[in-house]
Amino acid sequence: MTSTTPTMARCQALDAADPLRPLRDLFTLPEGMIYLDGNSLGALPRAVPERVAQVVARQWGQDLIGSWNSAGWFALPRRVGDRIAPLIGAGPGEVVASDTTSVNLYKALSAALSIAQANDAARRVVVSERSNFPTDLYIAEALCRERGCQLRLIEAHELQASLQPDVAVLLLSQVNYRTGALHDMARVTAAAHAAGVLTLWDLCHSAGALPIGLAAADADFAVGCTYKYLNGGPGAPAFVWVHPRHVARCWQPLAGWWGHAQPFAFTPEYEPAMDITRYQCGTQPILSLAALDAALDVFDAAEKLGGMAALRAKSLQLTDLFIAAVAAECPGQFDLVTPRAHAERGSQVCLTPTSQLPAGCAYAIVQALIARGVIGDFRAGDARQADILRFGFTPLYLSHQEVLQAAHHLRDVLSTKEYTQPRFNQRHAVT
Amino acid sequence: MTSTTPTMARCQALDAADPLRPLRDLFTLPEGMIYLDGNSLGALPRAVPERVAQVVARQWGQDLIGSWNSAGWFALPRRVGDRIAPLIGAGPGEVVASDTTSVNLYKALSAALSIAQANDAARRVVVSERSNFPTDLYIAEALCRERGCQLRLIEAHELQASLQPDVAVLLLSQVNYRTGALHDMARVTAAAHAAGVLTLWDLCHSAGALPIGLAAADADFAVGCTYKYLNGGPGAPAFVWVHPRHVARCWQPLAGWWGHAQPFAFTPEYEPAMDITRYQCGTQPILSLAALDAALDVFDAAEKLGGMAALRAKSLQLTDLFIAAVAAECPGQFDLVTPRAHAERGSQVCLTPTSQLPAGCAYAIVQALIARGVIGDFRAGDARQADILRFGFTPLYLSHQEVLQAAHHLRDVLSTKEYTQPRFNQRHAVT
Repeated sequence: MTSTTPTMARCQALDAADPLRPLRDLFTLPEGMIYLDGNSLGALPRAVPERVAQVVARQWGQDLIGSWNSAGWFALPRRVGDRIAPLIGAGPGEVVASDTTSVNLYKALSAALSIAQANDAARRVVVSERSNFPTDLYIAEALCRERGCQLRLIEAHELQASLQPDVAVLLLSQVNYRTGALHDMARVTAAAHAAGVLTLWDLCHSAGALPIGLAAADADFAVGCTYKYLNGGPGAPAFVWVHPRHVARCWQPLAGWWGHAQPFAFTPEYEPAMDITRYQCGTQPILSLAALDAALDVFDAAEKLGGMAALRAKSLQLTDLFIAAVAAECPGQFDLVTPRAHAERGSQVCLTPTSQLPAGCAYAIVQALIARGVIGDFRAGDARQADILRFGFTPLYLSHQEVLQAAHHLRDVLSTKEYTQPRFNQRHAVT
Repeated sequence: MTSTTPTMARCQALDAADPLRPLRDLFTLPEGMIYLDGNSLGALPRAVPERVAQVVARQWGQDLIGSWNSAGWFALPRRVGDRIAPLIGAGPGEVVASDTTSVNLYKALSAALSIAQANDAARRVVVSERSNFPTDLYIAEALCRERGCQLRLIEAHELQASLQPDVAVLLLSQVNYRTGALHDMARVTAAAHAAGVLTLWDLCHSAGALPIGLAAADADFAVGCTYKYLNGGPGAPAFVWVHPRHVARCWQPLAGWWGHAQPFAFTPEYEPAMDITRYQCGTQPILSLAALDAALDVFDAAEKLGGMAALRAKSLQLTDLFIAAVAAECPGQFDLVTPRAHAERGSQVCLTPTSQLPAGCAYAIVQALIARGVIGDFRAGDARQADILRFGFTPLYLSHQEVLQAAHHLRDVLSTKEYTQPRFNQRHAVT
């Protein structure tokens, strides 16, 4: 790591000049907390509580069944999808907000396999990274069992070599949940297409954090969650995008009535809608979907201040700052797991303790930071990879000063050795 | 229909003696509305707004990511499932509240097919009723395409004859959404088992309305929604139950991380939990799930007043009353679509206009009733079946007087001919 020491004065100046500063006022954040876990659960937008209360008390409580039409409940997955679309480089009518990332992945991967195999029945392999978020691998594994296909797991550096003639679909997370490494979507998609392989992108750790160009990259399918950088609330419905060239080419197997061409005709035979609507399945959780809808107002405000390009610029400033501050304040004590190059970095910074620190101390360091009000998270290592401290940097509401303060807390947790206190080593389930 | 004329005095006496009367105070109902559509969207329980507000403002807004553990979010599908279990005759640890009915049906039907075919590979047919709720048929149709199986649609009277040696699974709704007809779960399950066929029950129109004995009937699988008689709110997460003898016998294909034996081990290989947890998939919509959790408090209160048996007794009183009142007030003008025998009736009453009324008037009659504050719904007919007026009777909050008033409104809509006004014939999408 480099050794320039970022100063609070410099951070104050950066915050004073930050064009995105007004966005923080659109969030409720706990007093005194430095929240570096917006990549796990985004903070609460101020508009949400009132909107949800209105949906509960008026739309449900007073208007009851009539709200399916009068309050637009039935159209909400499409309408929210249209609000997500510009954030991921998709067009109107191409995205629905619905179900979970796992369920949407099943839909999209099923369709991608069907399309790939209709072109070439010998393509029976799904390639993904061993370090992809596990639910993506589990869903792919289960679907491959269903279809008599094979899931082939690779390391990131094996990507190009993995594009063999038996491969149907390349399933990747654009930003790795564990390391923060960012794929070049356009380059990878072009390489895949050159090899006759379709691409399916998981945008969980990139949507809302950086500009995404699904159409520009000529990607084929994408899914993602809305409760991280999109701040939709715990377990808010996920989204699914399908390139228009594929959308009507095959059924997706979760062929529920919300994907029917005429859901209220109540015909016994399934006839899928001709657009992205066919990627809907069953009745959606309206309270959670309404919260997400309200949360997306933040991105309307951000658009007026420079949009995703400005958010990306600030995100890189914040992660640069944190990397430099940790290098200066905790010299030699951490290795940087996240790529240093901007083009390869998402909106998070992951560290692993070096041999200067006691073995297995990462968990306790994260706990000690949490006790100080600096919220990051811990991801356990295994035979292949080290324990990590993971910090997410949401440019919508974080200041440069907070980021530097977080690095100072990290320094102090080490210098005081407070992380060695037994209370910080009592593990419980984390998300 | 019979010709005894129910009187308001009698209804007042019944209401005065109603042991379930206190339950109405647990709901917010619009002033002056007679809500006969709780079989589509249940009314708002009073406990819900505050609970949801607390989850949004405190658990999400203040405690943020920590709430996955501290507020029990991660355990909520299991916890809510355990609250639904006694309402459907299932045991603790056997039910999860998760996803949608359609998605859960896909999981359960996939597993049922796998288990049936492991016993006898020649069983490749799913039998269901042509009049089953369409999403059940769509999901079954799509899954059968995936598996190279066949969906065979029958009429109710063909049930026994349909249990042929090539049948794997019998997929039925316990109460028909359109007619209110109730299957004898124990008898049908016994007949299915005698023929080597597994049963999968859709409880959407029975859960919360009548006592259900899944274990007592020795059923195999069940799914259902929670936003009708369980009052969980629009699109609240559905539930799935699997008999313990089947639960660990096979994967269900939506093998997301919430169904993993150790979701936070983040291993690349899927290892399903050994219990109903494996029927979970992805991250659940916590706001909607919390609303459902709060809504179920109503059933704790009902339990103290006689529970599902008392609710069923009142439900039958209400539907008997409505049937008798319509017969007396609108003689010869409607045929009863819902079975008259208690053992064959759910908690709704469906009517179809006779030839005494103008052809195609059912829609306009429902609209004219809605304009009077009597909320029922309309289901269009087709070549096989007549248009119907559908009225749901939730014993938790309806009074006998309201039911009689509704019948009087129906009489008046006919006698005044107000349903012939053009404004009542302008159709729009209904749910």
